Amino acid sequence: MPAQRPGRTLAELTEAVQTSAGGTLTARLIGDAQYVIEGVAPLETATPRHLSFLANPRYRHAARVSRAGAMVLGETDFEALRPRNAVICDNPYAWFALAMQVLYPTPAVSPGQAPQAVVAPTARVAAGCRIDAGAVIEAEAEVADGAWIGAGCYVGEGAKIGAGTRLYPGARLLAECQIGARGIVHSGAVIGADGFGFASLAGRWVKLPQIGRVIIGDDVEIGANTTIDRGTMGDTVIEDGVKIDNQVQIGHNCRIGAHTVIAGCVGIAGSARIGRRCQLGGAAMIHGHIEICDDVIVSGGTLISRSIRTPGFYSGVFPFMPNRQWERNAALVRHLHELRDRLRRLEAGPAAEGETT
Amino acid sequence: MPAQRPGRTLAELTEAVQTSAGGTLTARLIGDAQYVIEGVAPLETATPRHLSFLANPRYRHAARVSRAGAMVLGETDFEALRPRNAVICDNPYAWFALAMQVLYPTPAVSPGQAPQAVVAPTARVAAGCRIDAGAVIEAEAEVADGAWIGAGCYVGEGAKIGAGTRLYPGARLLAECQIGARGIVHSGAVIGADGFGFASLAGRWVKLPQIGRVIIGDDVEIGANTTIDRGTMGDTVIEDGVKIDNQVQIGHNCRIGAHTVIAGCVGIAGSARIGRRCQLGGAAMIHGHIEICDDVIVSGGTLISRSIRTPGFYSGVFPFMPNRQWERNAALVRHLHELRDRLRRLEAGPAAEGETT
Amino acid sequence: MPAQRPGRTLAELTEAVQTSAGGTLTARLIGDAQYVIEGVAPLETATPRHLSFLANPRYRHAARVSRAGAMVLGETDFEALRPRNAVICDNPYAWFALAMQVLYPTPAVSPGQAPQAVVAPTARVAAGCRIDAGAVIEAEAEVADGAWIGAGCYVGEGAKIGAGTRLYPGARLLAECQIGARGIVHSGAVIGADGFGFASLAGRWVKLPQIGRVIIGDDVEIGANTTIDRGTMGDTVIEDGVKIDNQVQIGHNCRIGAHTVIAGCVGIAGSARIGRRCQLGGAAMIHGHIEICDDVIVSGGTLISRSIRTPGFYSGVFPFMPNRQWERNAALVRHLHELRDRLRRLEAGPAAEGETT
Repeated sequence: MPAQRPGRTLAELTEAVQTSAGGTLTARLIGDAQYVIEGVAPLETATPRHLSFLANPRYRHAARVSRAGAMVLGETDFEALRPRNAVICDNPYAWFALAMQVLYPTPAVSPGQAPQAVVAPTARVAAGCRIDAGAVIEAEAEVADGAWIGAGCYVGEGAKIGAGTRLYPGARLLAECQIGARGIVHSGAVIGADGFGFASLAGRWVKLPQIGRVIIGDDVEIGANTTIDRGTMGDTVIEDGVKIDNQVQIGHNCRIGAHTVIAGCVGIAGSARIGRRCQLGGAAMIHGHIEICDDVIVSGGTLISRSIRTPGFYSGVFPFMPNRQWERNAALVRHLHELRDRLRRLEAGPAAEGETT
Repeated sequence: MPAQRPGRTLAELTEAVQTSAGGTLTARLIGDAQYVIEGVAPLETATPRHLSFLANPRYRHAARVSRAGAMVLGETDFEALRPRNAVICDNPYAWFALAMQVLYPTPAVSPGQAPQAVVAPTARVAAGCRIDAGAVIEAEAEVADGAWIGAGCYVGEGAKIGAGTRLYPGARLLAECQIGARGIVHSGAVIGADGFGFASLAGRWVKLPQIGRVIIGDDVEIGANTTIDRGTMGDTVIEDGVKIDNQVQIGHNCRIGAHTVIAGCVGIAGSARIGRRCQLGGAAMIHGHIEICDDVIVSGGTLISRSIRTPGFYSGVFPFMPNRQWERNAALVRHLHELRDRLRRLEAGPAAEGETT
Repeated sequence: MPAQRPGRTLAELTEAVQTSAGGTLTARLIGDAQYVIEGVAPLETATPRHLSFLANPRYRHAARVSRAGAMVLGETDFEALRPRNAVICDNPYAWFALAMQVLYPTPAVSPGQAPQAVVAPTARVAAGCRIDAGAVIEAEAEVADGAWIGAGCYVGEGAKIGAGTRLYPGARLLAECQIGARGIVHSGAVIGADGFGFASLAGRWVKLPQIGRVIIGDDVEIGANTTIDRGTMGDTVIEDGVKIDNQVQIGHNCRIGAHTVIAGCVGIAGSARIGRRCQLGGAAMIHGHIEICDDVIVSGGTLISRSIRTPGFYSGVFPFMPNRQWERNAALVRHLHELRDRLRRLEAGPAAEGETT
């Protein structure tokens, strides 16, 4: 959690966001360009020192009564609310995210190696890295410039960590696995444990040695206690810009397409291929050896049991209801084919009622 | 796992439980008050040295044939079974729990700091704490009296740990997060990783810095490998007396009401608010930005997709069945609206059959 | 990830596999017995240096165009494809697994204790063990010959680790728990955290001290970030040959029968008993206090809410579909009993339509 900086005028903030957006956002500032913003807060708790945002018209009332010193919002919401200081933007949430990055910049890594870190002599750690207490970096591992290896982290033999990538305390990247630049691996994540591969033989299970790796692209974030297994043969691949939440499980030899987001508690079985720009809702489950094409959205809690070849939004969740009602309906689900058969008999008409079968 | 103490007479045990229950339990002792109990065991494996309990009439047979030296049970069960030594109580399970606490007390913390622990000079660690090998306590962190920080634990910058709270080996409380008194955090839990917050911008995801904290009340237990994310802005809050099992995921800015219990593998998405005294069954999933009122029970495996404003018991699980039967019924679920349409046509009667549409 | 050995002729490989299979596999070699195999690869990426396999006729086309130097496959596939070098086997996948074990043998443990490991004076660590940096081994723990305790692992007081068992970096076996010989515990796994046991008393939860252990047999593999809780009273038991994937949660006092496999993200609530040779699909959930007999297969994502006494294949998952279709069908599931009632009225015939009720 980066410390808060002293504050910026709205003019400074707008310019800084414009620079980092690089032309992908259009925004205009209304009100006092010299107004000083010290931080951000939600509409409800914001004070005149704070910038806040409105991205969903559902929260207009909260915006109307908010004490926020300035507000990022869309044209229509601006017309309705007319706040004194405002940034009008077609994508207020993205503008706000970039403004937060300006107000709360990730602190620079202060290079150095804690005396309680253990770094193998053949590991290649760039001079600009920070290695904290209890971290272990094994032989032949490479850690590029500006990387930060937190307390108690583990970087296995021959593993590679890209420039500016941060491993939070207790993250683990096992032997030969790689992560690109500007990545974030949160605490307790395990990258490169053995895939789950066994052959059945005479009543016991024979392990297949897992000789593949995990290869992760640039700008990838991996959540706390998430696990990504190494490939059996060949690699498990996470492409650039993928964002993975906590407690996600990704099996051996999966490929996750660029800029896909995966919410918490999702499980993806071995050899599944997920397309680019997909969104998997929390606790969605993906079968092994299937393919999901680009631009697919899966509802939370949905199990995807076969390939999806058409972009779109897919769901499959039993709706919740009061338990007594559920018990009656669940019992009927068990006998749905009987209901269908009774319906068929009715459709066949009275003439059919005497029939056998 | 605390070591077993030498044994107590039933009279001593009854008195000690009465004291800790503080008037919330009524119980009476039948039989030999001087009978010595050395430990506890389930009905099936208990010997005359053991105390056991019967809280569910379903297990009456096991109680009848049990060799237990004494038994905690309700009035009706007592009348049916007439064990020689018994504690008759309106809440036998709670009485038994308190008796276990008497027989197997949590060992006192022996203060001290392992030479392999790393404690920042500006951390404020009370004299009565125990800090084990490999633990790291960062600058400005506060650890109150009687706390125990296990091997390989991590306490981040400015984090606060209340009196008597125990972090099992490998638990992590990240920067600025707080937990109150008498808490337990099990191994591998991660408190305060970044919330999962990104804004979509021109095909990539822009991270919102996560500047909130996790604030946890008193008497909270947090299971192994459970993750609780820090707030984006504002805090994630876990109120007093909440009990959380293993591998639970709690997203940024959630609030969990006092004395709620959350079973294993539950996922709660960001900004959800759970009431007090709720019970979430294993692997239940709660959508983000919804509210669940006090005293709600959710069945295991149920996905709650909108707010619940009435206390009660809610379910939503597809019933399991032999696979072949499931395949037929699942296929019909996909076409339920067609069944409904056919039913409507039948209801409309033969006159309607010739109609178009 | 073991390093690749220099290569074997097909004759050597066949003989080595035959030896390790010990009569459980019949196979015959076709082609050049002196052909040298340097490694394995999937059909698609194999080169003439590689051995590959075909176990599913669905991949026959990939096999036909594969450049693999040799192929393990069944009789029928062989007849269809006629590769130049082949091992014909009734169980090609098992043969291939054993061949991988020959080509990529688990490296022998090089004994020794890292100076940054912390081993209690009363711990009994066999001479042939390897203890890595940051590992902590508590008093009275026992580590048998050939075991490897990875970086940052924790072995609690009185815990026991069998011969040749490997704990990957950051695995934790808490006090008094045991694992047998030739086991593998992956990173972040927590064995022996407290079971989730509380009694309700006057609006708060009273903890039952968890005094049981976790007892794990021989040849068991436990996945990354998996948690297995100790028993409340009595033990949690994992029998020989069980294979458990990542992020599985096993509650207190469960018993998992020998050679059962449990896929990722499965949750098993307390006191459940799973039979032998069962297969639990990913994210399956098992209620507490139920029994599943031997030889049961449970589909991924299925919740088992009562005991299963007949071997077989069980499922219970809401089928996924485009979201709009799902919304209509899910709404109907909520009202299934009304559909049923309407059907009944139709069945009763026009005479019944005027009836009250």
